Amino acid sequence: MTADALASQAPTAAPLGSGAPVLAFDVGGTDTKAALVDADGRLVRVLRIPTPHAGEATGDAVVDAIAGLAARFTAEHPDVVPQAAGLLVPGHVDDAAGVGVFAENLGWHDFPFRDRAEQALGLPVSFSHDVRGAGEAEHRLGAAAPYRDVVVMAIGTGIAGAVFVDGRLYTGGGMAGEMGHSRVADGPVCACGGIGCLEAVASAASIARRYNAAAGADVPGAREVLERAQHEDAVAQRVWESALDALALDLSHTVALLAPEAIVIGGGLAQAGPALFEPLAAKLDGILTFHRRPVLLPASIGENAGVIGAALRARDLLVTAPAPEPAS
Amino acid sequence: MTADALASQAPTAAPLGSGAPVLAFDVGGTDTKAALVDADGRLVRVLRIPTPHAGEATGDAVVDAIAGLAARFTAEHPDVVPQAAGLLVPGHVDDAAGVGVFAENLGWHDFPFRDRAEQALGLPVSFSHDVRGAGEAEHRLGAAAPYRDVVVMAIGTGIAGAVFVDGRLYTGGGMAGEMGHSRVADGPVCACGGIGCLEAVASAASIARRYNAAAGADVPGAREVLERAQHEDAVAQRVWESALDALALDLSHTVALLAPEAIVIGGGLAQAGPALFEPLAAKLDGILTFHRRPVLLPASIGENAGVIGAALRARDLLVTAPAPEPAS
Repeated sequence: MTADALASQAPTAAPLGSGAPVLAFDVGGTDTKAALVDADGRLVRVLRIPTPHAGEATGDAVVDAIAGLAARFTAEHPDVVPQAAGLLVPGHVDDAAGVGVFAENLGWHDFPFRDRAEQALGLPVSFSHDVRGAGEAEHRLGAAAPYRDVVVMAIGTGIAGAVFVDGRLYTGGGMAGEMGHSRVADGPVCACGGIGCLEAVASAASIARRYNAAAGADVPGAREVLERAQHEDAVAQRVWESALDALALDLSHTVALLAPEAIVIGGGLAQAGPALFEPLAAKLDGILTFHRRPVLLPASIGENAGVIGAALRARDLLVTAPAPEPAS
Repeated sequence: MTADALASQAPTAAPLGSGAPVLAFDVGGTDTKAALVDADGRLVRVLRIPTPHAGEATGDAVVDAIAGLAARFTAEHPDVVPQAAGLLVPGHVDDAAGVGVFAENLGWHDFPFRDRAEQALGLPVSFSHDVRGAGEAEHRLGAAAPYRDVVVMAIGTGIAGAVFVDGRLYTGGGMAGEMGHSRVADGPVCACGGIGCLEAVASAASIARRYNAAAGADVPGAREVLERAQHEDAVAQRVWESALDALALDLSHTVALLAPEAIVIGGGLAQAGPALFEPLAAKLDGILTFHRRPVLLPASIGENAGVIGAALRARDLLVTAPAPEPAS
């Protein structure tokens, strides 16, 4: 890792509140983000590096990279001494076992991230899934906080969610919240091999890809498709509408099965704001009948939700671990 | 209520195990079933009466009817003195508040069943939804017992389910488990007003109704449709296959969102046995890709699952109510 590979962001306010200083890592398919959180709950420093890709050795390379980031935090901020770390990775993640079971494009299979990270960092490590970690940040500090039964969805390159029932995160053995791989249409074929998966129709990446294929265009993202739809581009309108139809259909299944009080949507597509939320709510309303209507809300934590969720989980380790002294 | 209106069933073995004697009531759209459970957990007596229909006064009439059944149990079995009661009703049920919010065809709105039943019976009453009650019986004593993350579906006149996550029943404010009203097709119109609801395509009643409409026939139920499908009736085959396709599609959504370890199916349609379960599992397998595969299992408790679930919940009241003596 070289200094050139590092990009940093300005420290933010103290979103976490007071508690132990901790390290937080959010490993994505492209970038890995790291944060040093102090006792006031400030993100003292946020760093971003490209996620190392090393085939079957990617798990080890990721652990080496976060150890390097931790060392850099120590060198820069020797006054902030982390007492635990939170680590999030994508793919199929078994939170309870501390294992990264599998991640498309990241090469690991049943990699014991928690144990390896604890060895490398010399700290207790909380390990979870990236979308569940960001969802926990939204549920404890963000838009999902007022609700006990709530689904937090991220719609970006992919689509996945964190499911909270009766106030608790539900992981389903690490496989819950994969609504991105629910069939909502007769096509196209999804990267997972499924047909008509929600993610293949309505993710930000798929909206751009479908538009480019249909229009012979080369727009970089869903934002441009929405702009063209708002300027009477019939192909863009068709692609955008079909994505909203697919999202509304999938949400209606979520509502029928789980009856959440709210559905919080983050990720790149949520940047569309009312252009997404207003027609989506109307389409969902048109499908539902007697069901409990969920409130549709944009995520509020922003791009640092992952590291904030990881930091919250790291602090949990310290709060729940020690047994109280018996009263004498 | 007259003696002629009563039908009874033979007592069964002791499915509940030892505990307090309790009353159990399972109110359905057509019939109300009542059971007296003794300290050994035997269903000493099971009675069935037509559910009273009295328009807006149906809630009161139901409470009067169960009080009458309780009096009859007392007269017949003075040696079995119930200490609590469990009451299940259909529709939208708020378990926590003890309120029957609404039930299609049963006339009540926000009827305080738990309070009224406690007054009428002079006993503490546990109140819940009929499908959730039967689901609890399956989860504690039946096919769902080995699993912490499991959905128990009833496919009969309607389709609904009980959702267990991390070993606990999840009610979603009384509205969870309404997968019967998930859109899985472009039609037909459902009784709820929705379009292409699972229940309108694949319930036992809908399979018969759709076949009769398409074939100009008048078969009484899904069993006859299956029989005709097995004897080269092309219309019956088409209706049966489309019902299985709809069920598989809906189950695939449940799997993507919740990743249950098992899905237990009861109700009339489950009587089809392997003719249902084998093709359904194959169709579900054909939709899923990386998802956690659930085991598909038939419910095992049988037709008394509702009253058994109600009795289990009644006993819960007695076990959890008293505070333990402080150790001195």
